[in-house]
Amino acid sequence: MAVNARIPKGTRDFTPEVMLRRNYIFNTIKEVFHQYGYLPIETPAMENLSTLMGKYGEEGDRLLFKILNSGDYLAKADENALNEKDSNKLISSISEKGLRYDLTVPFARFVVQNRNELSFPFKRYQIQPVWRADRPQKGRYREFYQCDVDVIGSDSLLNEVELIQIVNDVYNRLRLNACFRINNRKILAGLAEIAGASDKMTDMTVAIDKLDKIGLDKVCQELESKDIATNSINKIKEVLALEGSNLEKLNFLKDQFSGSEIGLKGVEELRSVLDYLAPLPIKMDLLFDVTLARGLNYYTGAIFEVSAKDAKMGSITGGGRYDNLTGVFGLKDMSGVGLSFGADRIYDVMLQLGLFEKITNLDQTQLFFVNFGEKEANYCLQLLTRLRNADINAELYPDSAKMKKQMTYANQKNIPYVALIGESEMESGLISLKNMTTGEQQKLSLEEVINVIKR
Amino acid sequence: MAVNARIPKGTRDFTPEVMLRRNYIFNTIKEVFHQYGYLPIETPAMENLSTLMGKYGEEGDRLLFKILNSGDYLAKADENALNEKDSNKLISSISEKGLRYDLTVPFARFVVQNRNELSFPFKRYQIQPVWRADRPQKGRYREFYQCDVDVIGSDSLLNEVELIQIVNDVYNRLRLNACFRINNRKILAGLAEIAGASDKMTDMTVAIDKLDKIGLDKVCQELESKDIATNSINKIKEVLALEGSNLEKLNFLKDQFSGSEIGLKGVEELRSVLDYLAPLPIKMDLLFDVTLARGLNYYTGAIFEVSAKDAKMGSITGGGRYDNLTGVFGLKDMSGVGLSFGADRIYDVMLQLGLFEKITNLDQTQLFFVNFGEKEANYCLQLLTRLRNADINAELYPDSAKMKKQMTYANQKNIPYVALIGESEMESGLISLKNMTTGEQQKLSLEEVINVIKR
Repeated sequence: MAVNARIPKGTRDFTPEVMLRRNYIFNTIKEVFHQYGYLPIETPAMENLSTLMGKYGEEGDRLLFKILNSGDYLAKADENALNEKDSNKLISSISEKGLRYDLTVPFARFVVQNRNELSFPFKRYQIQPVWRADRPQKGRYREFYQCDVDVIGSDSLLNEVELIQIVNDVYNRLRLNACFRINNRKILAGLAEIAGASDKMTDMTVAIDKLDKIGLDKVCQELESKDIATNSINKIKEVLALEGSNLEKLNFLKDQFSGSEIGLKGVEELRSVLDYLAPLPIKMDLLFDVTLARGLNYYTGAIFEVSAKDAKMGSITGGGRYDNLTGVFGLKDMSGVGLSFGADRIYDVMLQLGLFEKITNLDQTQLFFVNFGEKEANYCLQLLTRLRNADINAELYPDSAKMKKQMTYANQKNIPYVALIGESEMESGLISLKNMTTGEQQKLSLEEVINVIKR
Repeated sequence: MAVNARIPKGTRDFTPEVMLRRNYIFNTIKEVFHQYGYLPIETPAMENLSTLMGKYGEEGDRLLFKILNSGDYLAKADENALNEKDSNKLISSISEKGLRYDLTVPFARFVVQNRNELSFPFKRYQIQPVWRADRPQKGRYREFYQCDVDVIGSDSLLNEVELIQIVNDVYNRLRLNACFRINNRKILAGLAEIAGASDKMTDMTVAIDKLDKIGLDKVCQELESKDIATNSINKIKEVLALEGSNLEKLNFLKDQFSGSEIGLKGVEELRSVLDYLAPLPIKMDLLFDVTLARGLNYYTGAIFEVSAKDAKMGSITGGGRYDNLTGVFGLKDMSGVGLSFGADRIYDVMLQLGLFEKITNLDQTQLFFVNFGEKEANYCLQLLTRLRNADINAELYPDSAKMKKQMTYANQKNIPYVALIGESEMESGLISLKNMTTGEQQKLSLEEVINVIKR
């Protein structure tokens, strides 16, 4: 009996049509990374569970895909856990490895394990899938790509500047209008300090992080519920409501933070970054947003979040500076800063805005040869060689099937030009070229065909 | 306590140096694929075990990495298997999914599941990692990339022709001298038939497949041990010892096969392929090798194997035609032909032959700016923008660290040019450019720098 051809829940096949577009996004991002000296690394899909567990909280541990040990895995299974049928307790004795949950922890492990082979500051990017045993739902998958870029081993603010330039260049090339919001964790710490709520820093950032979703009133309610004093909340409210240009906001905060060293440091760092960028050609909006908090506790300096101006999609890129990524693996004092591009969301935004239709350099076939029979095919093979030498993607239908069938194939593959070579073309040495968009057909020499297609 | 930063046994990290070279190989292969109209697909790392099991033999089933079901997986565990501590029997009740073992079975599943969205003949390539719980040893990994290219849904021999051209183009571009050996399963079937051993076809091909490793005498011994008659073995021996040009061999076999329809069909197919190729520019050796058998039973027509002429490495590419890839998933009569490029072996051959040293277009940084301080850095940022607009990969060291430290960084990253911008360069508008290979240093305008680097 035939096996049912079925993909696991929450995973996806990518057909050529989708792959060409995804690759266009990834290739664009990679080209920009290379222009700035960021180089690729790859880590294995599997990591030891000792590397992964405890890094993503209890929920994260649960969502890790665990790999069953090979061979007679029950031989070493925890007897008690087996008898109690305690699934959770049994895991560590029958599973040593898991699939990576993100690229951050594997990157930290990579840096520590390979530190003697790397040159610091180490500028790397990594584009690989990650896996999470989440309940599948619209837009949330159990396998998806992350696209991370980081520099580690330097606390220079030039790194922040460079990452902002990278985001600008990527979205410029993708023709996507972006809004880059920046804040600094030290500014949030300063805010907590001047509000007299330094000990509630985490509660405060967690609450502020929800501002977009729940609004200022509910944020204040949440702050109250965390026993933050009313005058503290008022202070926080005043700052969160801050308006004006980036410079006006910085100047206002500088005054506010006269009593907070860390707050002043945050203002100074952010001002430095903006000063470096001022004379450079940044096309996207660059907005100092004091309400940007980002939930992750490991950020210590700049924090970033990017959205598409013309689409409702939430964050399409985000990141920030961290000081202790590798500490858990025993390597201290490695400050770094990085970003993660959300490929799936970028894809969805570009689809929504019709941006893929404007791209003419997808890696698809540019010229299709109809197959009229063996003699003609032989003739076409030679033309194909010359076209490919001229860097044109071209193919011949493998069978001399009915014209309609062949044209349907060319259409389904979105091939823009079709070449027809019959008796008369073989005699004249010309090619009948059909433009599939306009329907126009003309007889041209091979050189003319190359020029038309490359135009 | 710090967690030990350790990668799982049998897996690898790829550092930027290695990644740039691997990407060079993959990008070269992809470019050639695109030139012939082959497009990418991707399938998920996980497949249902019902898709994977039973496709690779008992050994293969054992080597599949199985993923533990999420949540309380013991709740649905097979009670008997648990009580008997039968690891093997328990698997199906606690694991539904496994990591893909190759790209062939997922491709077949993909074609069947997505058949209504695909245009046939379907030309696809797929470059993704696969996982096998093999005992790790030199050159054998638990995670490695496969790079498959196939066309399915056409039995035209033009597909074979095209794949041979692709192999030729790929190795031409990689500057690797290749020897392409071709045979046809129908010729082997003809041989079995004229030797009166048609019922022993599998035993015969399995034995012949070992010819390279164990020599003709031992192959004959193995044939004897399978109860193949002595005069059959003599006939097989005579054909295996066949020498001469491709055409001479074909002519000899045509005579021999006068009583074997399938044998004649094989000769005719192979002759057609060679005839198509004759007028085309094929640089690699193309050898009809009647001793080429390839173990896999699903091949039904052409079989291919490619080796590097200047290195001892075994097969670096292989494949053939199959008639029933998708049958197991309920889709009959889909003939296809394909190839698999062995990326790890190609990498090793190229390393061994020093071919990477001749490549000048790796995606690495081309120009490094020494950082002399804030003012200079600001100035450099503007130059960097213009260089990147001219498609040059360039970076500025993020800290104004000691010269020696910065130069060491540039050296370790193999950056060929270093730019020095101090007070006098900022005044003159010129750039002091150092060629890191020759040590030569000169003052140039930005345009001149661009020309030097692009030269």
